[in-house]
Parts: sequence; C-alpha cells; structure tokens
Amino acid sequence: MSATPTVGWIGLGAIGAPMARAAATAGLPVTAFDLNPAALTALADVATPAASAAEAATGADVVVLMVATPAQLEAVLHGEHGIVGALTAETTLLIMATVGPAALEEAVRSLTWTTSRIVDAPVSGGTARAATGDLLVMVGGAAEDVARARPVLDALAASAPVVGPRPGDGQRVKIVNQLLCGVHIAAAGEALALAEAMGLDRGQVHEVLGGGAAASFMLADRGARMVAEDYDAVKSALTIFVKDMGLVTEAAAEAGQEVPLARTAAALYRRGDEQGLGAKDDSIVYRLLREGPAD
Amino acid sequence: MSATPTVGWIGLGAIGAPMARAAATAGLPVTAFDLNPAALTALADVATPAASAAEAATGADVVVLMVATPAQLEAVLHGEHGIVGALTAETTLLIMATVGPAALEEAVRSLTWTTSRIVDAPVSGGTARAATGDLLVMVGGAAEDVARARPVLDALAASAPVVGPRPGDGQRVKIVNQLLCGVHIAAAGEALALAEAMGLDRGQVHEVLGGGAAASFMLADRGARMVAEDYDAVKSALTIFVKDMGLVTEAAAEAGQEVPLARTAAALYRRGDEQGLGAKDDSIVYRLLREGPAD
Repeated sequence: MSATPTVGWIGLGAIGAPMARAAATAGLPVTAFDLNPAALTALADVATPAASAAEAATGADVVVLMVATPAQLEAVLHGEHGIVGALTAETTLLIMATVGPAALEEAVRSLTWTTSRIVDAPVSGGTARAATGDLLVMVGGAAEDVARARPVLDALAASAPVVGPRPGDGQRVKIVNQLLCGVHIAAAGEALALAEAMGLDRGQVHEVLGGGAAASFMLADRGARMVAEDYDAVKSALTIFVKDMGLVTEAAAEAGQEVPLARTAAALYRRGDEQGLGAKDDSIVYRLLREGPAD
Repeated sequence: MSATPTVGWIGLGAIGAPMARAAATAGLPVTAFDLNPAALTALADVATPAASAAEAATGADVVVLMVATPAQLEAVLHGEHGIVGALTAETTLLIMATVGPAALEEAVRSLTWTTSRIVDAPVSGGTARAATGDLLVMVGGAAEDVARARPVLDALAASAPVVGPRPGDGQRVKIVNQLLCGVHIAAAGEALALAEAMGLDRGQVHEVLGGGAAASFMLADRGARMVAEDYDAVKSALTIFVKDMGLVTEAAAEAGQEVPLARTAAALYRRGDEQGLGAKDDSIVYRLLREGPAD
C-alpha cells in the first residue's frame, strides 16, 4: 500500500458529497459512486465517476461507505452490483454511515471470509464542516486497520479519535452523541415553547439563557431557527432524528440501559414524522410542542 | 433615596450567604437576617446582624429575599416576625429566591396595600459565581422599581437583563432555565450511562463529545462529576431539582404547555429523592440511571 491510498467512495448524499470532495481536494485519488447520477456529475471535477458500487470499490485501498440506512449498507455490500466481490483481504472498509452497532456488527460478520480490515467511523458536524474537512469522526477498529484509513480520516476530520478497538465502537459513541443531540434539540423546543406560552419574548429568552448553565450547542444552533421559525431552509431534516433516536433506543434496549429522556424525545420526532414533517428542519419540534399532541 | 441604597438581606443559605457578602463587599450597607445564627455570625465582618427578618427590613431602601421555598417566602412576609409591617410604599422588595411565578404573583397580591415596588430577580450560576458577583440574574418588574434595585443587581450580577415588566417574569425565565438545566443534567447521565452499558470508556466519551454538537454546559460540568462518581462533594443538591422541576411542570400546566422531557426528568429526580439521595450532588442521576428503576 502506498502512503497515499486510493479511495473508492460510495454514497454522495447531503454529507457524503462534501466529504468526498474534501477527500479529493486533500489529494486522495477518489473513484465515486452514487445511485443518483446528478450527485456523481456534480463531483466529476475532482473524482472519477464509477458505473456501480462494485466498480468504485475495485482496486481501491480504502473503500468508504457513506450511505443512509442499515438496509442501504446491506444492499451496497451484498445486493445486486454490491461490492463484496470487489473486496480483498487487503481492502480497508471504512464505514462512515450512522447505522448503529447492531447493523455494523452484522456487516462485519457477513464479511468474515472477505476482509477483516473494517473500521467504523461515523461522523458528526453537518454539511458545512463536512465541506471544510472539519468533522468530528468517532473511530472504532484495530490499530493497524485504523492506520491504513488514517489518510482518509485526516482529510475529513478536525478530530478522529479512536474510541474503541471493535468495529462498532464508533457507532456506539455516535449513538451516545445522537442521544444528547436529539434530547437537546427537543429540550430547546420545549424551553422556547414554554417561554412563549408564559407570555415571554422567546427571542430574548434564547439570548439571555444561551450563555449560562442552560447553554447547549443545540440551544444556540437550533434555538435560533426556532426563534426565526424557518423550517423550510432545511439544514438537518427531522427524519434523521426519527432514524437515529430509533437506533439509540434499540442500542439501549440491547445493552439493558434505561433511556427515558431519549424515549420521550424519540416519540416526539416520530409524532412529527407521522404529521408529515419528516422533510422539514428538525427545529420544527418547537412548533410541534407549541401546538400540542393531537387529541 | 440616596445613590447607595441601604439593604436589608434575608436568607443566607448556600447561595444567599456569598451573595450578601458580595453586596457588602461592593460597598452597600447590609443588615442581614437568617434563622441559622451561624450563618449570621459568619457574615458579621461585613454586615450588621439583625435579630429578626422584620428588623433587617426596617428602614432599608431595598429588601432582598433569598429564601428556598414558596412556604418560606410566605413566612418571611406574613409569618410571626415577618417583614410586612416593616415595609413602606417606598421600600423596594427584591425577591431573588426561585419560587415560581405562581408564588411570586401571590406575594405581589398579598402586598397590595404595603408596597407595589416589587422586583423579582431569581439567579443562576452557583456558589462560586455568587461569591464573585458574577451571577446571571433574570429581572422582572417595572422600570422605575428595577432602577431602584439596580445598585444591588450590579453588585451581584455579571448580567441582569430585564426580561419583562411583570414581577414574575424573572421567575418565568428562571423556570425555562431550570427546564433546560434539569433536562441537560439528566441527558448527560443517560448518555454516560448508555456509554458505560455499551462497554465504552465513559471518560473518553465525555471528552470526545464535549466539544461538538452534543455539547452542553451541564455535560461539561456535571458530566465530569459523573465520570469521577463523587456525589458527596455536593455542589448542587439533587433536592434543588426536585423542587425546581416541580415548579417547571406546575408552570407548564398553568400555561397549557406540554413539557414531556421536563416531566420525564422530574420523575427521575423524584425517584432519586425517594431513594434517599436528595442531599447528594445532582450528578448522581448517572448512578440512578445505571442502576435502573426499582422493580
């Protein structure tokens, strides 16, 4: 393996596309695939488009998977035109999607006879930080495998700590991250909804409380969108937290840990989704709480 | 009224004592009372001790009340040796206790024929910031009355914004503050408990997530105590959040606003209290969640 690994990139969604561009811009040779041809075309100035996931993976030192769901992960690995036949014992598979520890471990098991060089490395930080290679990446895997993926991680992340030796440990930390994010967004919505219900100026409340003991990243970030009530300039869709809080409660059940706040927040995101708000910005939980539960 | 108001101070508890000292140190003449003689003695180097609440209030331009509960507020105002007889139409009553909007409005009503100069100004920030005059104070009241209390507020607070014209608006913002603090502490406990349950190093998780989208003041502050598991060096007793989350859910019910996360967190704090942990540091919610609900 050369010092500059060749990269096969599969998945060019809202976060995946700016990540792949950041990797290519950092000097890594990237061959990319996405089911959406427009996403491939948009990246063609910096990456070689492939005709299938298998083609993108063929000959790559590191194959990055940045899909949206466990079902997509399974399809990319083992579905029609899946990559399993293109992987060798020397391929390092870098799974950066947030799929939860259970799906990650199932993927590891399913690849036992193909490659054991699997690193899981889900990300946090959103599209803006993805574009500048400034993500937080939570890495789980054996030291030797992580070392092989390191040039890719360095291109994408401001910080990519190894949080455990097991592929899946990255997912576990991401799960904890999403628990906090999902609860904090809902708490910001609840706080500003209560402020408004009590006749306060919710914009001022947001400003006054933002610097003290009540502060959170999400109160500052999503709270500003709740004050503005603009849910159509979608920076983070509600549906992401429907999925991720589901992964949180599933992982908690598996681990035998009660997570009452996460369960409460998960129910709120599901309620929004059931009301047809899945594609809106997740800050719409403020509006959802102000309007109250359906009778 | 002189530019430097005389201050009658009632209530020298964990926060009240350093606040009174900060006011006196800033040059305000303070006459103080507390039911606990030791608290009075400890302050005698900077403040004049009074024999009763009424004596502390007599002749003061600004009377500060820093008691713990609505019942104590009622007793200080109207109980035996209460201050109501010592107040005049010129006295400014500065209620800095966290008693909730309902108790504050009841106090205002009960003083209709005594003084209408009532400012409510609950605080956030803890004992350390109380000692350095660096609290966040949320002020509700008429502009003229707030102006009379301003020298006291300036001595105590890094920031004391007027959040509404009604005495009670300070309480309302404090309620929103406590909702966020109470939920964020419980969320930190839940997150670190899940990390531990999934076999992760909770200290590392605390460190990795502390700077990103999952960040909160409480994750940094209480999270560190949860990692250390020292609940006996009490910086903020669990019982405070039993009381304050009760005020939150009560105010929310009054305002017709659902607060599902606050209700869930309130139940957790009550559970801790019922298990005899009320005097422990509130970060013990981590331990409570790890051990799970009683069968």
